[in-house]
Amino acid sequence: MKKDIICPDFPHILHGGDYNPDQWSDCPDVLEEDMRLMKLSGCNTMTVGIFSWAKLEPSEGVFDFSFLDKTFDDVYRNGGRIILATPSGARPAWLSQKYPEVLRTFSDRRTALHGKRHNHCYTSPLYLEKTAIINGKLAERYGKHPALIMWHLSNEYGGECHCALCREAFRNWLKAKYGSLDNLNKQWWTSFWAHTYTDWSQIEPPSHIGEDCVHGLTLDWKRFVTHQTADFMRHEIESVRKYTPDIPVTTNLMGFYQGLDYREISKYIDVVSWDNYPSWKGDGSDIDLASEIACVHDLNRSLKHKPFMMMESTPSCVNWKPFNKLKRPGQHMLSSLQAIAHGSDTVQYFQWRKSRGCSEKFHGAVVDHVGNENTRVFREVSELGKRLSKLDQIVGTQTVAKAAILYDWSNQWALDDANAFCKDNKKLLPTLNNFYRPLWKRGINTDIIGFEDNFDKYSLIIAPMIYMVDGRLEKKIADFVETGGTFLATYVFGLVNENDLCHLGGTPCGSLKKVFGIISEETDTLYPDESNKVTMDDKTFTAVDLCDLIHAETADVLANYSSDFYTGMPAFTVNRYGKGKAYFIAFRDKGDFADTVVSKLLSECHITSDFDGELPYGMTAHSRTDGDSIYVFLENFSSSELSTSSKFNWTKVEDGSAVTGSKINLKPYETLILKR
Amino acid sequence: MKKDIICPDFPHILHGGDYNPDQWSDCPDVLEEDMRLMKLSGCNTMTVGIFSWAKLEPSEGVFDFSFLDKTFDDVYRNGGRIILATPSGARPAWLSQKYPEVLRTFSDRRTALHGKRHNHCYTSPLYLEKTAIINGKLAERYGKHPALIMWHLSNEYGGECHCALCREAFRNWLKAKYGSLDNLNKQWWTSFWAHTYTDWSQIEPPSHIGEDCVHGLTLDWKRFVTHQTADFMRHEIESVRKYTPDIPVTTNLMGFYQGLDYREISKYIDVVSWDNYPSWKGDGSDIDLASEIACVHDLNRSLKHKPFMMMESTPSCVNWKPFNKLKRPGQHMLSSLQAIAHGSDTVQYFQWRKSRGCSEKFHGAVVDHVGNENTRVFREVSELGKRLSKLDQIVGTQTVAKAAILYDWSNQWALDDANAFCKDNKKLLPTLNNFYRPLWKRGINTDIIGFEDNFDKYSLIIAPMIYMVDGRLEKKIADFVETGGTFLATYVFGLVNENDLCHLGGTPCGSLKKVFGIISEETDTLYPDESNKVTMDDKTFTAVDLCDLIHAETADVLANYSSDFYTGMPAFTVNRYGKGKAYFIAFRDKGDFADTVVSKLLSECHITSDFDGELPYGMTAHSRTDGDSIYVFLENFSSSELSTSSKFNWTKVEDGSAVTGSKINLKPYETLILKR
Amino acid sequence: MKKDIICPDFPHILHGGDYNPDQWSDCPDVLEEDMRLMKLSGCNTMTVGIFSWAKLEPSEGVFDFSFLDKTFDDVYRNGGRIILATPSGARPAWLSQKYPEVLRTFSDRRTALHGKRHNHCYTSPLYLEKTAIINGKLAERYGKHPALIMWHLSNEYGGECHCALCREAFRNWLKAKYGSLDNLNKQWWTSFWAHTYTDWSQIEPPSHIGEDCVHGLTLDWKRFVTHQTADFMRHEIESVRKYTPDIPVTTNLMGFYQGLDYREISKYIDVVSWDNYPSWKGDGSDIDLASEIACVHDLNRSLKHKPFMMMESTPSCVNWKPFNKLKRPGQHMLSSLQAIAHGSDTVQYFQWRKSRGCSEKFHGAVVDHVGNENTRVFREVSELGKRLSKLDQIVGTQTVAKAAILYDWSNQWALDDANAFCKDNKKLLPTLNNFYRPLWKRGINTDIIGFEDNFDKYSLIIAPMIYMVDGRLEKKIADFVETGGTFLATYVFGLVNENDLCHLGGTPCGSLKKVFGIISEETDTLYPDESNKVTMDDKTFTAVDLCDLIHAETADVLANYSSDFYTGMPAFTVNRYGKGKAYFIAFRDKGDFADTVVSKLLSECHITSDFDGELPYGMTAHSRTDGDSIYVFLENFSSSELSTSSKFNWTKVEDGSAVTGSKINLKPYETLILKR
Repeated sequence: MKKDIICPDFPHILHGGDYNPDQWSDCPDVLEEDMRLMKLSGCNTMTVGIFSWAKLEPSEGVFDFSFLDKTFDDVYRNGGRIILATPSGARPAWLSQKYPEVLRTFSDRRTALHGKRHNHCYTSPLYLEKTAIINGKLAERYGKHPALIMWHLSNEYGGECHCALCREAFRNWLKAKYGSLDNLNKQWWTSFWAHTYTDWSQIEPPSHIGEDCVHGLTLDWKRFVTHQTADFMRHEIESVRKYTPDIPVTTNLMGFYQGLDYREISKYIDVVSWDNYPSWKGDGSDIDLASEIACVHDLNRSLKHKPFMMMESTPSCVNWKPFNKLKRPGQHMLSSLQAIAHGSDTVQYFQWRKSRGCSEKFHGAVVDHVGNENTRVFREVSELGKRLSKLDQIVGTQTVAKAAILYDWSNQWALDDANAFCKDNKKLLPTLNNFYRPLWKRGINTDIIGFEDNFDKYSLIIAPMIYMVDGRLEKKIADFVETGGTFLATYVFGLVNENDLCHLGGTPCGSLKKVFGIISEETDTLYPDESNKVTMDDKTFTAVDLCDLIHAETADVLANYSSDFYTGMPAFTVNRYGKGKAYFIAFRDKGDFADTVVSKLLSECHITSDFDGELPYGMTAHSRTDGDSIYVFLENFSSSELSTSSKFNWTKVEDGSAVTGSKINLKPYETLILKR
Repeated sequence: MKKDIICPDFPHILHGGDYNPDQWSDCPDVLEEDMRLMKLSGCNTMTVGIFSWAKLEPSEGVFDFSFLDKTFDDVYRNGGRIILATPSGARPAWLSQKYPEVLRTFSDRRTALHGKRHNHCYTSPLYLEKTAIINGKLAERYGKHPALIMWHLSNEYGGECHCALCREAFRNWLKAKYGSLDNLNKQWWTSFWAHTYTDWSQIEPPSHIGEDCVHGLTLDWKRFVTHQTADFMRHEIESVRKYTPDIPVTTNLMGFYQGLDYREISKYIDVVSWDNYPSWKGDGSDIDLASEIACVHDLNRSLKHKPFMMMESTPSCVNWKPFNKLKRPGQHMLSSLQAIAHGSDTVQYFQWRKSRGCSEKFHGAVVDHVGNENTRVFREVSELGKRLSKLDQIVGTQTVAKAAILYDWSNQWALDDANAFCKDNKKLLPTLNNFYRPLWKRGINTDIIGFEDNFDKYSLIIAPMIYMVDGRLEKKIADFVETGGTFLATYVFGLVNENDLCHLGGTPCGSLKKVFGIISEETDTLYPDESNKVTMDDKTFTAVDLCDLIHAETADVLANYSSDFYTGMPAFTVNRYGKGKAYFIAFRDKGDFADTVVSKLLSECHITSDFDGELPYGMTAHSRTDGDSIYVFLENFSSSELSTSSKFNWTKVEDGSAVTGSKINLKPYETLILKR
Repeated sequence: MKKDIICPDFPHILHGGDYNPDQWSDCPDVLEEDMRLMKLSGCNTMTVGIFSWAKLEPSEGVFDFSFLDKTFDDVYRNGGRIILATPSGARPAWLSQKYPEVLRTFSDRRTALHGKRHNHCYTSPLYLEKTAIINGKLAERYGKHPALIMWHLSNEYGGECHCALCREAFRNWLKAKYGSLDNLNKQWWTSFWAHTYTDWSQIEPPSHIGEDCVHGLTLDWKRFVTHQTADFMRHEIESVRKYTPDIPVTTNLMGFYQGLDYREISKYIDVVSWDNYPSWKGDGSDIDLASEIACVHDLNRSLKHKPFMMMESTPSCVNWKPFNKLKRPGQHMLSSLQAIAHGSDTVQYFQWRKSRGCSEKFHGAVVDHVGNENTRVFREVSELGKRLSKLDQIVGTQTVAKAAILYDWSNQWALDDANAFCKDNKKLLPTLNNFYRPLWKRGINTDIIGFEDNFDKYSLIIAPMIYMVDGRLEKKIADFVETGGTFLATYVFGLVNENDLCHLGGTPCGSLKKVFGIISEETDTLYPDESNKVTMDDKTFTAVDLCDLIHAETADVLANYSSDFYTGMPAFTVNRYGKGKAYFIAFRDKGDFADTVVSKLLSECHITSDFDGELPYGMTAHSRTDGDSIYVFLENFSSSELSTSSKFNWTKVEDGSAVTGSKINLKPYETLILKR
């Protein structure tokens, strides 16, 4: 198994963060201190230039790279490396003023005023041109600088624009997709409410002041927004790649952000990176939260099935949540190493030094306004820096998973948009997490995969709330089960096709009725104060929110509803199909049923953790490997000391010492990095 | 007593629903199945064409009636009848695009984009013209078709438009109403805050970005919206009536919808119909809900004092509520027969067959996406169809009520808009329901009447929160009591006149002080966490929200406040006036006081149910009659079996069998239809 | 000590209210009754003309003063006086129609329609001109009328306008403030997010559709709004002053209203007045509420350090709150005398007579719609009138305070706008009230002072959440402590400078680290369901919301945190500095810790009440003096009888009788006015 190292010339865990020396140009002493403190903290990588356009091009066509020249030289001289951003995330005021077409238009057709960030039109030819110029200048000037190790494209791409240029681009995208208006009308079912289009020019993006009842339109608009964002990003990539063909590019993603299909975005970047801001509380709730964050790490790793980057995190607190609590001592170490455990090869921060003014001045940073190293936060960052410096051997190692969870952006978009069930809160992600947690707490490596991923390498695939199933997915599922896989689906399964048209002829769609051996006739929606009962092996579980009323055709019934008018109807089934098994859960449970089922399925599929001890709740273990050695991160997310028992035979990665005996204790928030 | 039969040529309970074959033009097998399933389900009436404009007139002036031709023939050939809609509820995209004047303007003066439905300008001459053309074509083509039994005008008229055309129409309406600006200024009290108008052109509709403090303006705008909607509707009626003078017209109303004064709308239609979508839960709360729905049925019947239509309902669940629960088995039968019990001669659905796409694809329907009859829902519809087919003798029978509740749209508009009391939640309808429920549960037929209705035929009139009393109403109430009627009024009674100007000289206004023998000096508003006490005959009741502080002049005090500074002041009074009695309740109670009072008043007025058994809570009985026979619907709205005792001597309508003996048991959700 | 009498020619407590005879021009009998009832109620001052512009200038340049002529003569003839308003608070419709520039533009750049009130552009030269004309006409006509005692400028100035004129005025204001764009860019820290301005024309007011992340911009915009409002007000003053140089001017303020810096506004008016609308409930919560209202009275008195006016209050209920409860009997007397106790020389109402129509028709008034004196409310007003008529000797007496609380509008604006801590609810005012209440309940006169006030006259200054500290304030605090003062500061102290730029080099800023002997390193934010513990002298207190993590350098630690990871760190410190003491509270408590601390500090500073009895909770006492006599208002805000014990030797102001003995009982809501 080959290591996949982000920067082969700098094969270390990257540690550092967003660095804005352009805010401190007037303070040479601050800039000098930054270099001293960088080394002191064990940081080695600075991300610069994200919001520097106004500094770099103070007026149209006039460029000033002096601050960047100095930064590149200073950082490199002090042993660091630089991730250089393209500055498109926030444009200079003169640009908006002279070329208003770059301003975004809202869905109600009002145009934004200049301000904030992340709000340019993705279609504007002028903006494409202006970003290409500044990006090219940057690439030309710093492409050969030995400090440069990566491009950071823009910042947290997102949002949408409804200007005339975007609307026309949308129509062209639709023409390419559907060929004819007649086909579009059919796929969008526009005979409903007389919504038939008779000319392409009649098509407008969805809007609360216009059309928002044609779900096919809404879904395609979301896909178009991804397409157009990717198109803009590809222009950015081209503008630097011609100068720096060997420098990898990334852009920082935002977990399960619903504005973009990150599987599409990921195709065009070399490395996936993301910004990680969980709300640690320092109490028992942190354990569930750790599982949720682990899931997002796994998603990011699975996007390209290789090591990724944690591009942003805070060493202390954020400033934009309703309540901005400090990380408790030890939590920074723990949450940073969690990222590495799940496949990140970096720990980076927003931000290096707190700014003096504007909206992020109180966002946690390595260096506080006090300006020195005598803070709790700086000390914790430095301790982490020391540990990270001893993990070079882990850089580039891979994650092997036999279990996967199916997640698709289009599926969630369509499901969330559906007028049905518990209409305003479908809870797909909480449901997904209810299935992920049982895997996570047992130390099972898990991939979060999409419809296009290869299913063959998994023994077990869990598909929570896969409402949208097209012909290809239908066949992939059938093939997977037929050839021996175990597939678990749930309520609201296979109701619509890829354009959100309902499948006719019964649910789940097409051949899946045979694969699962069931027919789902109706879906009952419960009020939040209601629940139902499900009985399996004399144990009773609670059903909430959604209950499919299903009939078992060839499937075996493993659990039944035991209250309300559907008492006795199947609630959990399995069907042998080919060499595999297709399981179906008809109801939403509060987590314990999912846990029971996952435990059973892991056992049936012979999937085990790479760590050989029992894991009490709060302690877990995830592994990476280079094919020879296995690296296990044993972590305690609880605020109490926890222990695990077995016959251990490991070595500690950081000092090579042996970890043997029958018991390992972990202090609160402690992480042990083991090797075998 | 004459029967009033909606379609004398088709004297059956109409059973069917909205049918959209235009969505399935490409699927002849689906259309064929529809006919087979229609007969199988016992449906006999399809409502077609509601949203077919884009199909019928695919481009301006080009018409294609082929799908309708086929539908008319198919349905008729299979024994069914057709309710034909005018398609104005949703216009084709080409129409909005070519004639933007048809788009609605919001109160903030932004104009809507094309999309959704129910959002055309009611004033636009162009839209009037275009609807007249398509309506005329439909009437000309199908007016003589034997399947046609009724016109369904547009769909759920509602909403308002603030475009220049509407604003000018509003000013003209005001000129006609007030004659002079001086008069308008006086009636609207515009000397307040210097709001005096010196030119008609200064008058603009109420808007949160403009004027919303002149309540007379707000009230008149609401009245104008009703006027203008009725005007549009009358244009629609004219456009079909010249071809089909004998086909009755209706439009589907929405209960106590606050956007239109349905008493005004009802004047111009031949039959009232409404869309009924209660949130049945399958628990104890269904009983109170049943009372609320019964009240709306009674309102619709009372609008024209004759049988009405339930134009829409769901056989299963809806899809637009936050939680869309399935009707429990039996609830569909029960809720459908409840409509008949209160005077409906139809049970119709939205919709016949679930559409494949767009926002209503998961709305419950007779035929599900599976496309066959093998569903619980289809079976329940078919069972209902069988029962309905045996109720021909009930078609056209009338409802006789001796008790009435007074409800007026202008009164609620003005009250809800008042800055006073519990400002944002006046709770008029919950209060009305607190008085209706005691009548309903005792099986008392009740009319819901307006200020213009004839009071003479009632023994008891209850007037909850009649804040607005003009001179005519004042006189009607005085006359009613004087000639022997029993009238019950409540707190906030008679504060303002028809233009929301406060009456001077004390409350209640004018001669009502004498009729009720009281003066109301102040109204105290309680916070939600507060309550007061009222004592009557040693029983203590709880007062909440609103307490009038009244003085008894000639009235007898029947109950007193017993806490706070108004301890000892009257809380419930009666005044003999002429041959009648005027009761006054000074406070809002939680329901039990209203129940006690209504019970007492029914007894005094000798009003009894047509059903002769004791009615446990959850079981009730309402009756219809042709003057000779009395038909009683005995219904169980609880999820438990209930029984009633007496000496019974009835026959069952459906099979003519005798129902005698001393006890009748009703299973959960069961309805027994009796005749005497 | 000199008395400061608002109207030396009419040295009585002013009692009366807003009077709108222009609404009743058609009802001469009503106008006549008003005069009879005015005398009967003991009212002596009517505020007229607030919303009379449309009446006074029915069309452009055409004036009609007849109603005002009559009102001036009638009121004067009946012994009353008049406060005359300038009518700019609501303009005639013809003015908006002819000159749309007077309409206000919202922050999203939409322009308001005509309507409501308080929504003109403050910059419009046309509006300045038109108001100057009407104001001048009024001043010219009534300036010599013996009834005129004061100008009431407009009404409740507030709000903001984003029109082109205002935006240009804002830029000019910024040019004057900052001199150069370069300086502005530095002070606003615009290098953040590339927000650098390269031309003045790029600067736009803050907007949710534009820039709202540059806090310096947001802060300056709020200051500009105050500036521009004051500028408009000064134009109004000039327009009347040239005719009436000796008539004092006021404008009615709204307590801690956040839209304007009232310290700036107060500079230009002769007397401060405010509108007081507390939500009395008649239960125990009234005591805390009384403290809050007392605090606002003290604020208003402190704005000019002399007697003020309560310009509006209700004798009954208001009509614009969600729940509009009646004042309980006695509460009107109590709350009116409370104003006098804290330095008001007036008790005035909105309004004299309830209007018949529009949005305030149900607002409590002296004369109800019934139109006579036979109401509870009229009787209570009359009783108050009688008492007030006996308080002439108190008119103009002053308040002497040795304790002060620091409050600054810019500080709250910046703090509330900060993205940090408990972001959406910083709770500055509840915190301030937690420190005010211990002073209030002990009968300690307290000033609410700003950064520019003279600190020297106080022994104790409490500074809750003073986040913003500029160099001048830093020095004033240091000087105050050094020369012997006791200063108490809290968490989030001294983080930013006057432009919301963070201080570098540690917190609190600059020399305050030495003054307080501490360094604050971090601020922890707790979730609402969390708390911490603080222990002092074996007592444990609860910390909530915000906890500074501080290090004591030279300070003595008086209390420590006793839970979580900062157990043992200081929570309350004192530092001797020069001749004084600087206290620091690091955490927010629920009130009991603040109470304990304030008690201790009062004792250390030898600050006592002018009333010599023990004060049970609910009873309090505040004093005024002319230098010779001390007047104490002893008040019971509870709904129970309360008593106080001591050796008393007072006389009653109203009848000169002696109050001696050892015990004074106060009935619920009773006020005793004592003199010594």
